[in-house]
Amino acid sequence: MSATYSSASWRGVNLLLLLCAIWSTTGLLLVQAKVHYHKWDISYKFKSPDCYKKLAVTINGQTPGPTINAQQGDTIVVRVKNSLLTENVAIHWHGIRQIGTPWFDGTEGVTQCPIVAGDTFDYRFVVDRPGTYLYHAHYGMQRSAGLYGLIRVAVPQGVVEPFAYDFDRSIILNDWWHNNTYEQATGLASIPFVWVGEPRSLLINGRGKFNCSLAGPTAVCNATNPECSPYVLTVVPGKTYRLRIASITSLSALNFEIEGHNMTVVEADGHYVKPFVIKNLNIYSGETYSVLFTADRDPSRNYWLAVNVISRKPDTPTGTAVLNYYPNHPRKSPPTSPPVGPLWNDTMYRLNQSRNIRSHPDHVHPPPLTSDRMIILLNTQNKVDGYTRWALNNVSFNLPHTPYLIALKEKLRHVFDQRPAPETYDYRNYDIHSLTHNATIGTSIYRLDFNSTVDVILQNANMLEANKSETHPWHLHGHDFWVLGYGQEKFDPEVHPKEYNLVDPIMKNTVPLHQYGWTAIRFRADNPGAWAFHCHIESHFFLGMGVVFEEGVDRVGELPTSIMGCGDSKSLTRP
Amino acid sequence: MSATYSSASWRGVNLLLLLCAIWSTTGLLLVQAKVHYHKWDISYKFKSPDCYKKLAVTINGQTPGPTINAQQGDTIVVRVKNSLLTENVAIHWHGIRQIGTPWFDGTEGVTQCPIVAGDTFDYRFVVDRPGTYLYHAHYGMQRSAGLYGLIRVAVPQGVVEPFAYDFDRSIILNDWWHNNTYEQATGLASIPFVWVGEPRSLLINGRGKFNCSLAGPTAVCNATNPECSPYVLTVVPGKTYRLRIASITSLSALNFEIEGHNMTVVEADGHYVKPFVIKNLNIYSGETYSVLFTADRDPSRNYWLAVNVISRKPDTPTGTAVLNYYPNHPRKSPPTSPPVGPLWNDTMYRLNQSRNIRSHPDHVHPPPLTSDRMIILLNTQNKVDGYTRWALNNVSFNLPHTPYLIALKEKLRHVFDQRPAPETYDYRNYDIHSLTHNATIGTSIYRLDFNSTVDVILQNANMLEANKSETHPWHLHGHDFWVLGYGQEKFDPEVHPKEYNLVDPIMKNTVPLHQYGWTAIRFRADNPGAWAFHCHIESHFFLGMGVVFEEGVDRVGELPTSIMGCGDSKSLTRP
Repeated sequence: MSATYSSASWRGVNLLLLLCAIWSTTGLLLVQAKVHYHKWDISYKFKSPDCYKKLAVTINGQTPGPTINAQQGDTIVVRVKNSLLTENVAIHWHGIRQIGTPWFDGTEGVTQCPIVAGDTFDYRFVVDRPGTYLYHAHYGMQRSAGLYGLIRVAVPQGVVEPFAYDFDRSIILNDWWHNNTYEQATGLASIPFVWVGEPRSLLINGRGKFNCSLAGPTAVCNATNPECSPYVLTVVPGKTYRLRIASITSLSALNFEIEGHNMTVVEADGHYVKPFVIKNLNIYSGETYSVLFTADRDPSRNYWLAVNVISRKPDTPTGTAVLNYYPNHPRKSPPTSPPVGPLWNDTMYRLNQSRNIRSHPDHVHPPPLTSDRMIILLNTQNKVDGYTRWALNNVSFNLPHTPYLIALKEKLRHVFDQRPAPETYDYRNYDIHSLTHNATIGTSIYRLDFNSTVDVILQNANMLEANKSETHPWHLHGHDFWVLGYGQEKFDPEVHPKEYNLVDPIMKNTVPLHQYGWTAIRFRADNPGAWAFHCHIESHFFLGMGVVFEEGVDRVGELPTSIMGCGDSKSLTRP
Repeated sequence: MSATYSSASWRGVNLLLLLCAIWSTTGLLLVQAKVHYHKWDISYKFKSPDCYKKLAVTINGQTPGPTINAQQGDTIVVRVKNSLLTENVAIHWHGIRQIGTPWFDGTEGVTQCPIVAGDTFDYRFVVDRPGTYLYHAHYGMQRSAGLYGLIRVAVPQGVVEPFAYDFDRSIILNDWWHNNTYEQATGLASIPFVWVGEPRSLLINGRGKFNCSLAGPTAVCNATNPECSPYVLTVVPGKTYRLRIASITSLSALNFEIEGHNMTVVEADGHYVKPFVIKNLNIYSGETYSVLFTADRDPSRNYWLAVNVISRKPDTPTGTAVLNYYPNHPRKSPPTSPPVGPLWNDTMYRLNQSRNIRSHPDHVHPPPLTSDRMIILLNTQNKVDGYTRWALNNVSFNLPHTPYLIALKEKLRHVFDQRPAPETYDYRNYDIHSLTHNATIGTSIYRLDFNSTVDVILQNANMLEANKSETHPWHLHGHDFWVLGYGQEKFDPEVHPKEYNLVDPIMKNTVPLHQYGWTAIRFRADNPGAWAFHCHIESHFFLGMGVVFEEGVDRVGELPTSIMGCGDSKSLTRP
């Protein structure tokens, strides 16, 4: 029995826990599961991550927040004190399936009420799989204000991973604006639509570089602020590094490279990948990867770590960090220009890399060979009553004020539209290159038979602007799914399922839908609860690009009252 | 039986109401009391009140919000839908005593939990006195984001006021910044203290004028935006106008004048004033006045309405509106320069005007000649653990997260410090010109015997900076008080009470405490509830310049659960 503490002052918490048995692919192991206690104070602080000073939502004064380190099977307890003055918060544990704790998924409107300004809320969940995960605000557009960080889950002692390395490092990527989230959100919800523009900078571990000469006279921008000095990854020549790379961007698809070094992809979203070697890694918001690289180049100099925007026409400078070969000075600038990445609009290149990501042969979770249900989701940009929105099968999603999980469990049927959300679209006749899309606002959800197998086909289409289609990274809460295939143009249910990879598909929680293409996923509806499935671009979900799946809600245990208190759940909180 | 509606779509609301008897000074009148229904949607909108575009918290898209018009004895129902994305709200009805409805005073932390983003909340209260009042956000520093407006309560039909006029007009004054409230509040709560600076502009009925050439290149500032065209008050030559003037400034004491016209002061905070004639009206945040003026000047031209900052060294341009003599063109600029007001630092001038405000001889509410208790509050600026704060008797007030009214009524004794707040300070030995002040943060309150008479002496002192003392407008919730006297330097309880005006003191809800002076007030603790008493400067209350009075809380009826849901009141909301 053991426990770790992030704070010595947490009194009165029961530290007792039980030995538990954990199933891993290598066999049945009896291990000591720990409980990790974290105390987080969420507040606004002035921060200069890219040298430009602005307010950020911080955890214990920091953005990104602290990395949560744990071992498979451990329990994470995070006591969140909301010290924002008048603003609420909710934190999602991205990639953690929350088996048995669907109420701690942290998705405002789906699994909980927001944590009211001044309140304290305890999240408590088990990290049941090893790998690299994220956490971030999941409320309004608050994520883009800086509340995000990493979760690293190690394999149990004695368990061997299918690759070897000397050191384990991680970086988290983000894009950054100088307008605050209220300004961004108000613009999105206005007629005419006001777009904030491309990111001002790209951040690597919370550090970027804005050109201060572009800042206005009233702005505080200081290029020598240590907060925006580049992140330095120091390596020992000859050693091999596991680099965990996560992207939490609000908008941007990114390409990551380590100047002059190849990378071997070994993990994606917590699953082992059949290793493949690349120079450039495409990473979409909500994805995590582990790559291996060896510090085997000329050790007399440093190198760039670089991220560049792809899939949208870039108007953001390359984000850089320094790969520092020990014992060179960490601030020694590489003698070269930072890499500019691949062509931003090379869709085939990105599609091919997506297709290359397959399950490690020794770690295949075979998918069910058939599914019980196929949901096809046409992704469109729409005008609804003059507002710009995103929609699935012409329904633009709107979160009800009372969270779905509570409404479902407590049978508050008036909270959302009880009619089923549309299962498909007119795929025979619909032209995915057309510009006109009628849509309505909706709150309907998909109710799945418990333990059934569900296929979801994401179908991309034209935006409101001619000859423009956007990449959407889709993230599923509460599950990992098999990635059965990617295609170009229109998905044909008669044809394409025959081409699915049912042999070694990777499992993921986030997957890109490429321009004018389709992506097919399969999952088992085996986790009782209500789960969001949405585009991970912050503004897209805000404008309706998401759905909710329900399964086995009758099997969900009694909901903690801590998740209640808003809307129609206000009257449910007496103990 | 009758009712007015601000929205036709409010269904299912019981419109029935009873005839009720109202006591007025002219006798017992049987009148028809109305219920006024208002539906307010609170949201962020881009607004340019001074030509500089920024986000504002609006009511139905507007700032200032709609004026509430009613007659004495009417009931106001405001259904507030909080459509801020992630931010809560609470609205205070400033000057309305909330007799019998202390839970609808709208003071977050004192009388209610905030209205959570997405929630709807009904305020329902009686306007039991005629006069001019305000409403505004009372949560964090949200008031300065633009949520404010006027309440005008007419006398019942047949009741004659002690003055005559042809037309009744109103203006509301405000000061305005371009930094948002989160930036301001984060700066105030930082080490080192970051001050937002003097207001960028003064607004008359929500319209001001910032010099756009001072705005940065990224700012949107458009001097021709109709939102910042000056307010025009059109008058008919020869007619007499009642002008209701209210100040909701976050910081500034103001001086108001009508170029070339005298004003006769006739109302202050809903009480009739012994008329006196002035050229310049000093008005402090939270105060309201009615003045009469006659359009008796050269009718061939227009005139300025002007507001200037007083009591702080001004760094804000004069705020202007146009007094338009019909039939001149309303946009015809007056041929003169706008008045610049009196000397900003002429304390005696302001003190004398304060002393001139006495009760109308026919409308004197005689004060009790003695009081049961005297509370002396030393007003100081302090450092507490390195933070800049304001304190009373060396206690800097901190709102608990569970509102006092709920904690008191439900006997949640752990919510706040149960020890009495300090009754006085060492007035014999204390030097009010000293710079060093030790203070602590506290949550104690003053518990008053029900129906007792309480004197409060506000004693001003030096700030942390040498030779600097600031004017503080003190506002009492739930009561009107008698203004017994103002003095310079230190109040002496042995001497000064003998000089109190017990003959015709004005009753008010907001009163200035002048630099290095004292102000003595008296009130009857006859309104069961918990009531804030605080400096009405937004940043001062935010930094601890307030106290809470409790009286007769055992007589308070059952609290509506709608005010609960935060902190320890979360578990009290089941019906």
